[in-house]
Amino acid sequence: MSKGRILSIQSHVAFGYVGGKAAVFPLQCLGYDVDVVNTVNFSNHTGYGRFGGSRATAAELTAVLENMEKNRLLQPERLLTGYIPGSEALSVVLGLAQKLREKNPELIYLLDPVLGDSGKLYVSPDVIPIYRAMLPLSTIITPNWFEVETLTDVQITDVSSLRRALKILHEQYQVPNVVVSSIPLRPWLHAALPAQARPSGSEPDASYLLCIASSATDTTKGPAPSAVHIRAVTCLSGYFSGVGDLFSALVLAHFRAGPHAGMAGGSHLAHAAAQALAKTHAMLKLTDEYAAALPEEDRLPTDEELDAREPERKVRRMNGRELRLVQGQDIIRSSALADAKMSSWEGFWEE
Amino acid sequence: MSKGRILSIQSHVAFGYVGGKAAVFPLQCLGYDVDVVNTVNFSNHTGYGRFGGSRATAAELTAVLENMEKNRLLQPERLLTGYIPGSEALSVVLGLAQKLREKNPELIYLLDPVLGDSGKLYVSPDVIPIYRAMLPLSTIITPNWFEVETLTDVQITDVSSLRRALKILHEQYQVPNVVVSSIPLRPWLHAALPAQARPSGSEPDASYLLCIASSATDTTKGPAPSAVHIRAVTCLSGYFSGVGDLFSALVLAHFRAGPHAGMAGGSHLAHAAAQALAKTHAMLKLTDEYAAALPEEDRLPTDEELDAREPERKVRRMNGRELRLVQGQDIIRSSALADAKMSSWEGFWEE
Repeated sequence: MSKGRILSIQSHVAFGYVGGKAAVFPLQCLGYDVDVVNTVNFSNHTGYGRFGGSRATAAELTAVLENMEKNRLLQPERLLTGYIPGSEALSVVLGLAQKLREKNPELIYLLDPVLGDSGKLYVSPDVIPIYRAMLPLSTIITPNWFEVETLTDVQITDVSSLRRALKILHEQYQVPNVVVSSIPLRPWLHAALPAQARPSGSEPDASYLLCIASSATDTTKGPAPSAVHIRAVTCLSGYFSGVGDLFSALVLAHFRAGPHAGMAGGSHLAHAAAQALAKTHAMLKLTDEYAAALPEEDRLPTDEELDAREPERKVRRMNGRELRLVQGQDIIRSSALADAKMSSWEGFWEE
Repeated sequence: MSKGRILSIQSHVAFGYVGGKAAVFPLQCLGYDVDVVNTVNFSNHTGYGRFGGSRATAAELTAVLENMEKNRLLQPERLLTGYIPGSEALSVVLGLAQKLREKNPELIYLLDPVLGDSGKLYVSPDVIPIYRAMLPLSTIITPNWFEVETLTDVQITDVSSLRRALKILHEQYQVPNVVVSSIPLRPWLHAALPAQARPSGSEPDASYLLCIASSATDTTKGPAPSAVHIRAVTCLSGYFSGVGDLFSALVLAHFRAGPHAGMAGGSHLAHAAAQALAKTHAMLKLTDEYAAALPEEDRLPTDEELDAREPERKVRRMNGRELRLVQGQDIIRSSALADAKMSSWEGFWEE
């Protein structure tokens, strides 16, 4: 049982499960040696409202990476990067990704371009061009809806603009594999889906999320820029932190290496995304059931006004909704979830 | 499967398995939620010769802990502290331990007083009095031989001085449980052991190590200050890093909580130490077998002169001997190792 080595560069929190705390344990459970570089050392995730600790400076990150390199410890088969605060630190990671890609064309690099969510940027805008420079180095990216729009400068309002955004990622930025999870299933998207992928027995509404896996194809053999696979999952109400970090880690863990892993068509990516989706969803359900059984004061709904007046309110809610990663470790370790499949979106690229 | 929450405060390395990297994954595998406070963020352990990164300042540690406290996230059932660089940072941890002990008399605190090894101090001498002040707050300590001598100011050369050192720890410093692992089985110690605990079919020599678990007893019921249990294990040649950190984590993980866990006699401690010893030994064997199968240049023996001339030599050896924690995770998870038992050292306290 030795699947190789992953270098993970993301945030660290003492309490709870976001960033590295959501990614490293699952990767280890699945048999990977994980090298862990912490971009921040915080008490807890920022959603609590109160948090403290420090960000690693560019010089500190460089010192860690340079000494690893001198000691020939910088030879991971896979690279995973998540939240990295500030453009200076991000530039260090860009330089690292360039170096690793150059040394090893077979490197599997999952880049999660953490920029923001639901229309709000939560990083400084000067990191956007750096992320764009990183895209061609990646094997897989896992942006959310908003991050796709920000990186491609395309507002996605219909299938045509969705095609345009994916085309930019695959062709202009040379990203072989794109997984966009958690897309609200708006009416236009619901209507465009192939019948077998539409959530059964329900009207189109925001209680479903769609995951799209788009894997670039060899365009010398056909006109479609990518093979597109999809799956809709039910949306659990309320906010859970670290879900995207867990999902990205699981996509990377389940992505099969191979001589042309990056360009091997849709099957590798769709397999990995399907497993990651099923396991993440099962973990969320476990967490949701746990949270639902807590005393009422630990699950007061989001109310910005009340939350601002009583910080405890938010803190208790956040704590009650931390991922049950340790308690649900058997979910992560389960070898193959039989019903974890994505549907092919045939004809996606036909205008 | 929810065993409660452990706050772990120790060093972090990006590559390899020492400090938190050797402790946290095993604790998570065994079902504990682990809050992880990093006292350093280094590239690799210092044994490689070259390393880089940063130490958390006392102010940074305080910021993390204070924000956890404000958010009511500082309520662990168990506390684990390992390597903490410098007296200022250590004083912060002393203050934390005092606060947690005061809030929760049932707190199970495993203190690994990391001072040095084999006659050499590898911390600043000004931390020694701070560690002495921490001892009465602990439930279990896991010093090595040299650390027992340093903390008690007793040179251990015979059974009488061993008794004196343990008595000081139990009575003067009020430590309920002491586990000293990896004591070279010198002739005087071999000769003093009860017959059933002596390694069978062999002369006394340095190829055996003894583990002693000493659990304070209720002295109103009898004259002996503690129940003493022992087990000898064969010693693998060469140096492995992170072994003590893994061992301490496993002792804590297997120590049963209870209304009087700290003072419940020898059985709880002997059980935990026996499991920790068996699992650590199995992990070491796995690592040793892996290292033995590496190409010759990755397993060149320690030679200070050659190592100084060629830093690569040492680096490769260190890398080849990193614990196979991920590959051996089934060892950690195994529920009960039947032959993992310690022998009672009856009559240890009789002069």
